[in-house]
Amino acid sequence: MSKNGRKKLALVVQGGTLDKLYCAFILASTAVAMDMEAHLYFTFWGLNMLAKGSMEKAGLPATYKHLEEKMKENLKRMKYPTPYEMLKRLKQSGSLKIYACSPSMEMFGIKREDLIPEVDEIAGAATFLEVAANSDITLFI
Amino acid sequence: MSKNGRKKLALVVQGGTLDKLYCAFILASTAVAMDMEAHLYFTFWGLNMLAKGSMEKAGLPATYKHLEEKMKENLKRMKYPTPYEMLKRLKQSGSLKIYACSPSMEMFGIKREDLIPEVDEIAGAATFLEVAANSDITLFI
Amino acid sequence: MSKNGRKKLALVVQGGTLDKLYCAFILASTAVAMDMEAHLYFTFWGLNMLAKGSMEKAGLPATYKHLEEKMKENLKRMKYPTPYEMLKRLKQSGSLKIYACSPSMEMFGIKREDLIPEVDEIAGAATFLEVAANSDITLFI
Repeated sequence: MSKNGRKKLALVVQGGTLDKLYCAFILASTAVAMDMEAHLYFTFWGLNMLAKGSMEKAGLPATYKHLEEKMKENLKRMKYPTPYEMLKRLKQSGSLKIYACSPSMEMFGIKREDLIPEVDEIAGAATFLEVAANSDITLFI
Repeated sequence: MSKNGRKKLALVVQGGTLDKLYCAFILASTAVAMDMEAHLYFTFWGLNMLAKGSMEKAGLPATYKHLEEKMKENLKRMKYPTPYEMLKRLKQSGSLKIYACSPSMEMFGIKREDLIPEVDEIAGAATFLEVAANSDITLFI
Repeated sequence: MSKNGRKKLALVVQGGTLDKLYCAFILASTAVAMDMEAHLYFTFWGLNMLAKGSMEKAGLPATYKHLEEKMKENLKRMKYPTPYEMLKRLKQSGSLKIYACSPSMEMFGIKREDLIPEVDEIAGAATFLEVAANSDITLFI
Protein backbone atom coordinates (compact mmCIF):
# COMPACT_ATOMS: atom_id res chain seq x y z
CA MET A 1 0.00 0.00 0.00
CA SER A 2 1.10 3.55 -0.69
CA LYS A 3 2.20 5.92 2.09
CA ASN A 4 -0.89 8.02 1.39
CA GLY A 5 -3.11 5.02 2.08
CA ARG A 6 -4.03 4.34 -1.55
CA LYS A 7 -3.74 0.80 -2.92
CA LYS A 8 -1.16 0.18 -5.65
CA LEU A 9 -1.05 -1.82 -8.87
CA ALA A 10 2.43 -2.55 -10.29
CA LEU A 11 2.73 -4.00 -13.79
CA VAL A 12 5.74 -5.12 -15.80
CA VAL A 13 4.74 -4.56 -19.42
CA GLN A 14 7.09 -6.91 -21.26
CA GLY A 15 4.79 -7.69 -24.17
CA GLY A 16 4.53 -5.32 -27.12
CA THR A 17 1.49 -6.71 -28.92
CA LEU A 18 -1.98 -5.18 -29.08
CA ASP A 19 -3.55 -7.79 -26.78
CA LYS A 20 -0.95 -7.24 -24.06
CA LEU A 21 -1.11 -3.44 -24.31
CA TYR A 22 -4.90 -3.47 -23.99
CA CYS A 23 -4.67 -5.77 -20.95
CA ALA A 24 -2.16 -3.48 -19.27
CA PHE A 25 -4.08 -0.29 -19.98
CA ILE A 26 -7.51 -1.69 -19.12
CA LEU A 27 -6.17 -2.95 -15.78
CA ALA A 28 -4.47 0.40 -15.15
CA SER A 29 -7.58 2.43 -16.13
CA THR A 30 -9.75 0.34 -13.87
CA ALA A 31 -7.30 0.65 -11.00
CA VAL A 32 -7.19 4.43 -11.38
CA ALA A 33 -11.01 4.58 -11.51
CA MET A 34 -10.99 2.65 -8.20
CA ASP A 35 -8.68 5.31 -6.74
CA MET A 36 -5.62 3.07 -6.84
CA GLU A 37 -2.19 4.16 -8.05
CA ALA A 38 -0.93 2.42 -11.20
CA HIS A 39 2.79 1.93 -11.85
CA LEU A 40 3.75 0.56 -15.28
CA TYR A 41 7.31 -0.56 -15.94
CA PHE A 42 7.89 -1.06 -19.69
CA THR A 43 10.65 -3.49 -20.60
CA PHE A 44 11.80 -5.44 -23.66
CA TRP A 45 9.03 -5.51 -26.35
CA GLY A 46 6.95 -3.27 -24.12
CA LEU A 47 9.76 -0.72 -23.96
CA ASN A 48 9.88 -0.66 -27.76
CA MET A 49 6.24 0.46 -27.71
CA LEU A 50 7.23 3.64 -25.85
CA ALA A 51 9.21 4.89 -28.86
CA LYS A 52 7.25 7.62 -30.66
CA GLY A 53 4.90 6.23 -33.31
CA SER A 54 5.33 2.58 -32.26
CA MET A 55 2.18 1.95 -30.28
CA GLU A 56 0.06 2.95 -33.27
CA LYS A 57 1.61 0.08 -35.24
CA ALA A 58 1.16 -2.62 -32.57
CA GLY A 59 -0.31 -5.84 -33.93
CA LEU A 60 -1.19 -9.31 -32.69
CA PRO A 61 1.39 -12.02 -31.85
CA ALA A 62 2.23 -14.70 -34.43
CA THR A 63 -0.24 -17.20 -32.93
CA TYR A 64 -3.16 -14.86 -33.60
CA LYS A 65 -1.83 -12.85 -36.57
CA HIS A 66 -4.67 -14.08 -38.81
CA LEU A 67 -7.21 -12.33 -36.52
CA GLU A 68 -5.45 -8.96 -36.53
CA GLU A 69 -7.26 -7.23 -39.33
CA LYS A 70 -10.70 -8.30 -38.11
CA MET A 71 -9.93 -7.24 -34.55
CA LYS A 72 -8.74 -3.81 -35.67
CA GLU A 73 -11.95 -3.36 -37.69
CA ASN A 74 -14.09 -4.41 -34.71
CA LEU A 75 -12.30 -2.00 -32.41
CA LYS A 76 -12.80 0.83 -34.87
CA ARG A 77 -16.48 0.02 -35.29
CA MET A 78 -16.90 -0.10 -31.49
CA LYS A 79 -15.12 3.30 -31.35
CA TYR A 80 -12.75 1.67 -28.86
CA PRO A 81 -9.83 3.94 -27.95
CA THR A 82 -6.41 2.93 -29.27
CA PRO A 83 -3.78 1.93 -26.69
CA TYR A 84 -2.04 5.31 -27.03
CA GLU A 85 -5.33 7.19 -26.58
CA MET A 86 -5.95 5.14 -23.42
CA LEU A 87 -2.47 5.93 -22.15
CA LYS A 88 -2.89 9.67 -22.72
CA ARG A 89 -6.24 9.72 -20.87
CA LEU A 90 -4.72 7.71 -18.05
CA LYS A 91 -1.91 10.22 -17.65
CA GLN A 92 -4.46 12.99 -17.13
CA SER A 93 -5.70 11.20 -14.00
CA GLY A 94 -2.40 11.94 -12.28
CA SER A 95 -2.45 8.42 -10.82
CA LEU A 96 -0.37 6.65 -13.47
CA LYS A 97 3.39 6.52 -13.48
CA ILE A 98 5.29 5.21 -16.51
CA TYR A 99 8.81 3.84 -16.22
CA ALA A 100 11.03 3.05 -19.22
CA CYS A 101 13.53 0.22 -18.57
CA SER A 102 17.03 1.65 -19.06
CA PRO A 103 18.84 -1.65 -19.87
CA SER A 104 16.21 -2.35 -22.57
CA MET A 105 16.82 1.10 -24.04
CA GLU A 106 20.52 0.33 -24.27
CA MET A 107 19.88 -3.11 -25.76
CA PHE A 108 17.58 -1.72 -28.47
CA GLY A 109 19.46 1.54 -29.05
CA ILE A 110 16.49 3.69 -28.02
CA LYS A 111 17.31 7.15 -26.68
CA ARG A 112 15.43 9.42 -24.28
CA GLU A 113 14.44 11.73 -27.14
CA ASP A 114 12.88 8.79 -29.01
CA LEU A 115 10.35 8.18 -26.21
CA ILE A 116 6.81 9.52 -26.02
CA PRO A 117 6.47 12.49 -23.62
CA GLU A 118 4.19 10.51 -21.26
CA VAL A 119 7.18 8.61 -19.84
CA ASP A 120 7.80 9.75 -16.25
CA GLU A 121 11.10 8.09 -15.49
CA ILE A 122 13.90 6.09 -17.08
CA ALA A 123 14.83 3.47 -14.52
CA GLY A 124 16.39 0.09 -13.89
CA ALA A 125 14.74 -2.99 -12.40
CA ALA A 126 15.61 -1.90 -8.83
CA THR A 127 13.15 0.99 -9.09
CA PHE A 128 10.41 -1.39 -10.19
CA LEU A 129 11.15 -3.97 -7.47
CA GLU A 130 11.07 -1.21 -4.84
CA VAL A 131 7.61 -0.13 -6.05
CA ALA A 132 6.35 -3.70 -6.51
CA ALA A 133 7.39 -4.82 -3.03
CA ASN A 134 5.07 -2.14 -1.65
CA SER A 135 2.17 -2.82 -4.03
CA ASP A 136 -1.05 -4.72 -3.47
CA ILE A 137 -1.07 -6.38 -6.90
CA THR A 138 1.93 -7.18 -9.13
CA LEU A 139 1.59 -8.72 -12.59
CA PHE A 140 3.97 -9.46 -15.48
CA ILE A 141 2.20 -8.85 -18.78
CA MET B 1 -6.26 -13.40 2.70
CA SER B 2 -9.96 -14.24 2.60
CA LYS B 3 -12.35 -13.13 5.35
CA ASN B 4 -12.76 -16.77 6.35
CA GLY B 5 -9.01 -17.04 6.98
CA ARG B 6 -8.23 -19.07 3.85
CA LYS B 7 -5.39 -17.99 1.61
CA LYS B 8 -6.27 -16.84 -1.92
CA LEU B 9 -4.78 -17.33 -5.38
CA ALA B 10 -5.93 -14.87 -8.08
CA LEU B 11 -5.03 -15.56 -11.71
CA VAL B 12 -5.66 -13.54 -14.85
CA VAL B 13 -5.90 -16.15 -17.62
CA GLN B 14 -5.12 -14.08 -20.71
CA GLY B 15 -3.51 -16.87 -22.74
CA GLY B 16 -5.64 -19.34 -24.66
CA THR B 17 -3.08 -21.98 -25.57
CA LEU B 18 -2.74 -25.46 -24.10
CA ASP B 19 0.44 -24.64 -22.18
CA LYS B 20 -1.11 -21.60 -20.50
CA LEU B 21 -4.37 -23.41 -19.66
CA TYR B 22 -2.48 -26.29 -18.05
CA CYS B 23 -0.37 -23.86 -16.01
CA ALA B 24 -3.48 -22.05 -14.77
CA PHE B 25 -5.39 -25.22 -13.89
CA ILE B 26 -2.44 -27.02 -12.28
CA LEU B 27 -1.78 -23.97 -10.08
CA ALA B 28 -5.49 -23.71 -9.23
CA SER B 29 -5.80 -27.46 -8.49
CA THR B 30 -2.77 -27.37 -6.25
CA ALA B 31 -4.05 -24.27 -4.44
CA VAL B 32 -7.42 -25.91 -3.82
CA ALA B 33 -5.71 -29.09 -2.56
CA MET B 34 -3.82 -26.83 -0.10
CA ASP B 35 -7.15 -25.45 1.09
CA MET B 36 -6.71 -22.12 -0.66
CA GLU B 37 -9.40 -20.36 -2.67
CA ALA B 38 -8.69 -20.00 -6.41
CA HIS B 39 -10.11 -17.10 -8.43
CA LEU B 40 -9.61 -17.25 -12.21
CA TYR B 41 -10.40 -14.22 -14.34
CA PHE B 42 -10.49 -15.19 -18.04
CA THR B 43 -9.79 -12.37 -20.47
CA PHE B 44 -8.84 -11.97 -24.15
CA TRP B 45 -7.62 -15.33 -25.61
CA GLY B 46 -8.41 -16.96 -22.29
CA LEU B 47 -11.99 -15.68 -22.46
CA ASN B 48 -12.34 -17.25 -25.90
CA MET B 49 -11.56 -20.60 -24.28
CA LEU B 50 -14.69 -20.32 -22.11
CA ALA B 51 -16.93 -20.55 -25.19
CA LYS B 52 -18.47 -24.03 -25.40
CA GLY B 53 -16.30 -26.49 -27.32
CA SER B 54 -13.26 -24.19 -27.49
CA MET B 55 -11.06 -25.60 -24.76
CA GLU B 56 -11.09 -28.99 -26.45
CA LYS B 57 -9.47 -27.42 -29.53
CA ALA B 58 -6.72 -25.51 -27.68
CA GLY B 59 -3.28 -25.95 -29.22
CA LEU B 60 0.24 -24.70 -28.71
CA PRO B 61 1.42 -21.16 -29.56
CA ALA B 62 3.18 -20.49 -32.89
CA THR B 63 6.65 -20.78 -31.33
CA TYR B 64 5.98 -24.38 -30.30
CA LYS B 65 3.41 -25.43 -32.90
CA HIS B 66 5.70 -28.17 -34.24
CA LEU B 67 5.56 -29.92 -30.85
CA GLU B 68 1.76 -29.89 -30.57
CA GLU B 69 0.96 -33.30 -32.01
CA LYS B 70 3.62 -35.06 -29.99
CA MET B 71 2.56 -33.34 -26.78
CA LYS B 72 -1.07 -34.29 -27.30
CA GLU B 73 -0.04 -37.92 -27.88
CA ASN B 74 2.11 -37.90 -24.72
CA LEU B 75 -0.71 -36.47 -22.64
CA LYS B 76 -3.09 -39.11 -23.93
CA ARG B 77 -0.62 -41.91 -23.22
CA MET B 78 -0.08 -40.56 -19.70
CA LYS B 79 -3.89 -40.45 -19.31
CA TYR B 80 -3.46 -36.81 -18.34
CA PRO B 81 -6.81 -35.03 -17.93
CA THR B 82 -7.67 -32.44 -20.58
CA PRO B 83 -7.91 -28.79 -19.45
CA TYR B 84 -11.72 -28.95 -19.48
CA GLU B 85 -11.73 -32.15 -17.42
CA MET B 86 -9.44 -30.44 -14.90
CA LEU B 87 -11.74 -27.43 -14.78
CA LYS B 88 -14.82 -29.55 -14.15
CA ARG B 89 -13.13 -31.46 -11.31
CA LEU B 90 -11.92 -28.20 -9.82
CA LYS B 91 -15.45 -26.79 -9.80
CA GLN B 92 -16.59 -29.75 -7.70
CA SER B 93 -14.24 -28.65 -4.92
CA GLY B 94 -16.36 -25.56 -4.34
CA SER B 95 -13.17 -23.51 -3.94
CA LEU B 96 -12.80 -22.27 -7.52
CA LYS B 97 -14.52 -19.20 -8.90
CA ILE B 98 -14.49 -18.47 -12.62
CA TYR B 99 -15.00 -14.95 -13.96
CA ALA B 100 -15.58 -14.15 -17.64
CA CYS B 101 -14.29 -10.70 -18.68
CA SER B 102 -17.25 -8.70 -19.98
CA PRO B 103 -15.31 -6.25 -22.21
CA SER B 104 -13.60 -9.23 -23.90
CA MET B 105 -17.01 -10.79 -24.52
CA GLU B 106 -18.13 -7.61 -26.24
CA MET B 107 -14.92 -7.37 -28.26
CA PHE B 108 -15.19 -10.96 -29.52
CA GLY B 109 -19.00 -11.04 -29.84
CA ILE B 110 -19.36 -13.86 -27.31
CA LYS B 111 -22.69 -14.03 -25.49
CA ARG B 112 -23.59 -15.44 -22.07
CA GLU B 113 -25.32 -18.44 -23.68
CA ASP B 114 -22.11 -19.28 -25.59
CA LEU B 115 -20.18 -19.84 -22.36
CA ILE B 116 -19.63 -23.17 -20.58
CA PRO B 117 -21.88 -23.61 -17.52
CA GLU B 118 -18.91 -23.59 -15.12
CA VAL B 119 -18.59 -19.79 -15.39
CA ASP B 120 -19.67 -18.21 -12.08
CA GLU B 121 -19.76 -14.56 -12.99
CA ILE B 122 -19.48 -12.19 -15.93
CA ALA B 123 -17.48 -9.26 -14.65
CA GLY B 124 -15.25 -6.32 -15.52
CA ALA B 125 -11.67 -5.75 -14.41
CA ALA B 126 -12.80 -3.95 -11.23
CA THR B 127 -14.13 -7.22 -9.83
CA PHE B 128 -10.81 -8.91 -10.48
CA LEU B 129 -8.74 -6.07 -8.98
CA GLU B 130 -10.93 -6.13 -5.86
CA VAL B 131 -10.28 -9.87 -5.45
CA ALA B 132 -6.59 -9.62 -6.37
CA ALA B 133 -5.90 -6.79 -3.90
CA ASN B 134 -7.01 -9.16 -1.13
CA SER B 135 -5.16 -12.23 -2.43
CA ASP B 136 -1.91 -13.78 -1.30
CA ILE B 137 -0.68 -14.61 -4.80
CA THR B 138 -1.59 -12.86 -8.07
CA LEU B 139 -0.30 -13.99 -11.47
CA PHE B 140 -1.00 -13.03 -15.09
CA ILE B 141 -0.88 -16.12 -17.28
CA MET C 1 8.58 -11.70 3.83
CA SER C 2 11.11 -14.32 4.80
CA LYS C 3 11.50 -15.51 8.40
CA ASN C 4 14.94 -13.88 8.48
CA GLY C 5 13.38 -10.51 7.64
CA ARG C 6 14.56 -10.41 4.02
CA LYS C 7 12.09 -9.57 1.28
CA LYS C 8 11.30 -12.28 -1.25
CA LEU C 9 10.76 -12.40 -5.02
CA ALA C 10 9.00 -15.51 -6.40
CA LEU C 11 8.93 -16.09 -10.15
CA VAL C 12 7.27 -18.79 -12.22
CA VAL C 13 9.48 -19.10 -15.32
CA GLN C 14 7.11 -20.67 -17.83
CA GLY C 15 8.62 -19.10 -20.94
CA GLY C 16 11.67 -20.63 -22.56
CA THR C 17 12.67 -17.87 -24.98
CA LEU C 18 15.64 -15.52 -24.69
CA ASP C 19 13.50 -12.48 -23.86
CA LYS C 20 11.73 -14.24 -21.00
CA LEU C 21 14.93 -15.76 -19.59
CA TYR C 22 16.63 -12.35 -19.57
CA CYS C 23 13.62 -10.79 -17.82
CA ALA C 24 13.63 -13.48 -15.14
CA PHE C 25 17.38 -13.33 -14.53
CA ILE C 26 17.62 -9.53 -14.59
CA LEU C 27 14.79 -9.29 -12.04
CA ALA C 28 16.41 -12.01 -9.91
CA SER C 29 19.88 -10.39 -10.13
CA THR C 30 18.48 -7.03 -9.15
CA ALA C 31 16.52 -8.54 -6.27
CA VAL C 32 19.63 -10.30 -4.96
CA ALA C 33 21.64 -7.06 -5.27
CA MET C 34 18.93 -5.41 -3.13
CA ASP C 35 19.42 -8.13 -0.52
CA MET C 36 16.18 -9.91 -1.37
CA GLU C 37 15.83 -13.67 -1.77
CA ALA C 38 14.92 -14.87 -5.27
CA HIS C 39 12.95 -18.09 -5.83
CA LEU C 40 12.59 -19.26 -9.43
CA TYR C 41 10.21 -22.08 -10.28
CA PHE C 42 10.85 -23.36 -13.82
CA THR C 43 7.89 -25.02 -15.52
CA PHE C 44 6.84 -26.01 -19.06
CA TRP C 45 9.07 -24.29 -21.67
CA GLY C 46 11.09 -22.80 -18.84
CA LEU C 47 11.71 -26.26 -17.40
CA ASN C 48 13.04 -27.39 -20.77
CA MET C 49 15.68 -24.68 -20.48
CA LEU C 50 17.09 -26.36 -17.36
CA ALA C 51 18.18 -29.38 -19.39
CA LYS C 52 21.95 -29.27 -19.95
CA GLY C 53 22.91 -27.35 -23.09
CA SER C 54 19.42 -25.94 -23.70
CA MET C 55 19.75 -22.41 -22.39
CA GLU C 56 22.63 -21.76 -24.78
CA LYS C 57 20.28 -22.45 -27.70
CA ALA C 58 17.39 -20.25 -26.52
CA GLY C 59 16.02 -17.99 -29.23
CA LEU C 60 13.22 -15.45 -29.67
CA PRO C 61 9.51 -16.35 -29.93
CA ALA C 62 7.86 -16.66 -33.36
CA THR C 63 6.53 -13.08 -33.27
CA TYR C 64 10.07 -11.68 -33.03
CA LYS C 65 12.07 -14.44 -34.74
CA HIS C 66 13.24 -12.05 -37.46
CA LEU C 67 15.06 -9.97 -34.83
CA GLU C 68 16.91 -12.90 -33.25
CA GLU C 69 20.17 -12.77 -35.14
CA LYS C 70 20.55 -9.02 -34.73
CA MET C 71 19.76 -9.18 -31.02
CA LYS C 72 22.32 -11.93 -30.46
CA GLU C 73 24.95 -9.83 -32.29
CA ASN C 74 24.09 -6.75 -30.21
CA LEU C 75 24.35 -8.71 -26.97
CA LYS C 76 27.73 -10.08 -28.00
CA ARG C 77 28.99 -6.63 -28.96
CA MET C 78 27.78 -5.23 -25.62
CA LYS C 79 29.57 -8.17 -23.91
CA TYR C 80 26.27 -8.90 -22.23
CA PRO C 81 26.36 -12.15 -20.21
CA THR C 82 24.34 -15.06 -21.63
CA PRO C 83 21.36 -16.28 -19.57
CA TYR C 84 23.35 -19.26 -18.29
CA GLU C 85 26.27 -17.06 -17.29
CA MET C 86 23.84 -14.83 -15.38
CA LEU C 87 22.34 -17.87 -13.68
CA LYS C 88 25.73 -19.19 -12.58
CA ARG C 89 26.74 -15.80 -11.13
CA LEU C 90 23.41 -15.55 -9.36
CA LYS C 91 23.91 -18.95 -7.73
CA GLN C 92 27.18 -17.72 -6.23
CA SER C 93 25.26 -15.08 -4.27
CA GLY C 94 23.63 -17.81 -2.18
CA SER C 95 20.32 -15.93 -2.41
CA LEU C 96 18.84 -17.70 -5.42
CA LYS C 97 16.91 -20.94 -5.24
CA ILE C 98 16.00 -22.85 -8.42
CA TYR C 99 13.09 -25.28 -8.52
CA ALA C 100 12.44 -27.68 -11.42
CA CYS C 101 8.74 -28.52 -11.89
CA SER C 102 8.35 -32.28 -11.48
CA PRO C 103 5.13 -32.71 -13.52
CA SER C 104 6.78 -30.84 -16.43
CA MET C 105 9.76 -33.20 -16.21
CA GLU C 106 7.43 -36.16 -16.52
CA MET C 107 5.52 -34.56 -19.40
CA PHE C 108 8.70 -33.84 -21.38
CA GLY C 109 10.59 -36.99 -20.34
CA ILE C 110 13.39 -35.02 -18.69
CA LYS C 111 15.28 -36.82 -15.93
CA ARG C 112 17.18 -35.48 -12.91
CA GLU C 113 20.52 -36.33 -14.54
CA ASP C 114 19.57 -34.23 -17.59
CA LEU C 115 19.32 -31.05 -15.51
CA ILE C 116 22.07 -28.47 -14.99
CA PRO C 117 23.75 -28.76 -11.56
CA GLU C 118 22.46 -25.34 -10.46
CA VAL C 119 18.97 -26.79 -9.80
CA ASP C 120 18.32 -26.85 -6.04
CA GLU C 121 15.13 -28.84 -5.87
CA ILE C 122 12.73 -30.87 -7.97
CA ALA C 123 9.28 -29.93 -6.77
CA GLY C 124 5.59 -29.72 -7.55
CA ALA C 125 3.41 -26.63 -7.66
CA ALA C 126 2.61 -26.88 -3.93
CA THR C 127 6.20 -26.00 -3.07
CA PHE C 128 6.01 -22.92 -5.27
CA LEU C 129 2.64 -21.78 -3.90
CA GLU C 130 3.96 -22.15 -0.34
CA VAL C 131 6.93 -19.92 -1.18
CA ALA C 132 4.85 -17.47 -3.24
CA ALA C 133 2.22 -16.99 -0.52
CA ASN C 134 5.00 -15.71 1.72
CA SER C 135 6.70 -13.53 -0.90
CA ASP C 136 6.55 -9.78 -1.44
CA ILE C 137 6.44 -9.99 -5.24
CA THR C 138 5.15 -12.85 -7.39
CA LEU C 139 5.29 -12.84 -11.19
CA PHE C 140 4.55 -15.37 -13.95
CA ILE C 141 7.05 -14.94 -16.77
